[in-house]
Amino acid sequence: VAVDYSLYLVTDRDILGEGRDLIQAVCDAVRGGVTLVQLREKRLSSRDFYNLALALKKKLVSMNVPLIINDRLDIALAIDADGLHVGQEDLPVNIARSLMGPEKIVGLSVNTLEQAREGEQAGASYLGIGPVFYTQTKTDIDEPVGVEKLKLFKKNTSIPLVAIGGINLNNLEDVKQTGMDGVAIVSGLMAAQDVTGAAREMINIWKKN
Amino acid sequence: VAVDYSLYLVTDRDILGEGRDLIQAVCDAVRGGVTLVQLREKRLSSRDFYNLALALKKKLVSMNVPLIINDRLDIALAIDADGLHVGQEDLPVNIARSLMGPEKIVGLSVNTLEQAREGEQAGASYLGIGPVFYTQTKTDIDEPVGVEKLKLFKKNTSIPLVAIGGINLNNLEDVKQTGMDGVAIVSGLMAAQDVTGAAREMINIWKKN
Repeated sequence: VAVDYSLYLVTDRDILGEGRDLIQAVCDAVRGGVTLVQLREKRLSSRDFYNLALALKKKLVSMNVPLIINDRLDIALAIDADGLHVGQEDLPVNIARSLMGPEKIVGLSVNTLEQAREGEQAGASYLGIGPVFYTQTKTDIDEPVGVEKLKLFKKNTSIPLVAIGGINLNNLEDVKQTGMDGVAIVSGLMAAQDVTGAAREMINIWKKN
Repeated sequence: VAVDYSLYLVTDRDILGEGRDLIQAVCDAVRGGVTLVQLREKRLSSRDFYNLALALKKKLVSMNVPLIINDRLDIALAIDADGLHVGQEDLPVNIARSLMGPEKIVGLSVNTLEQAREGEQAGASYLGIGPVFYTQTKTDIDEPVGVEKLKLFKKNTSIPLVAIGGINLNNLEDVKQTGMDGVAIVSGLMAAQDVTGAAREMINIWKKN
């Protein structure tokens, strides 16, 4: 199945505006043009994560947008999600691939060319490269990759590439020029006042030409 | 496969003595007579949990004692553990059973007769009933079941039953009289000065007569 990585929303309930509903925000973003959604939850009980993922899947199926679960392969299997995204601190990609089966999407976060090559060989469907810019969304210590180096990742891999980390309306065009298959956005969408409008602006820039 | 539930160790790294190694403590307990081990980790990254579970499994296989993973079905699948234990806040038992397959052990924590009947119908291999006594190990709000009521669980179910919560050398004999298939011990073993000796005393009382 061909996946459209153009505008990839990664959720973060901590930066949602006060009193706003996560599923509602995701649906608003999809209405604006988001092509792929990753549900990321770090503190919910397994039951709450399962119930939330099940409810979100129901919405996204009806909107024809794939749902990917962050880190938790058990939740991905339990709701029959379209895929799983793992980081370097999560299950190894080869294990994730083997348990998800050959048909599902398995994404991997990478920060270096070595991680990218290893991930591709281990069976990743796509790579999330980042952070591209400095960002406060993730509390990790990885050095920003920078826009220029994205071209090196493109040259050294042959699976879809998604740039993540600090991407917004001001630098989206620059990222696009590096040959990425898409951009993953957290705060640029989840913290936006007008989620649908923000998604629409981004997808318009991305699909231009 | 017949499982011996007699003396079921549930790990808790927070009550391990200063500087003590988790895997070492588990092995010490097994040498004393523990018949089954549940690895319970709530704050490790998925990668660290996976690596720890893999290392512990290697040890336990060589000692011929089954390993059950708490909550995280992904870790259980990834290391091909002997089973999974879920609580009421974890994945539903029927989902866990379906993803683990018919051969694996799937345990469920219950506090009421209704939960016990539901769990048995949903495909649980055994039930962990508790807390039997007041305990500070788990920060839950469930009312203690008490020793007397264990007999009611025995009367109303037909799968193996394990009592958990505040069980120690002083009340072990009373619990045994209720017809339980075993006792699950957290602090009585993990916090013991002499883990092997504590396990030996417990299994001797349990297997007496």
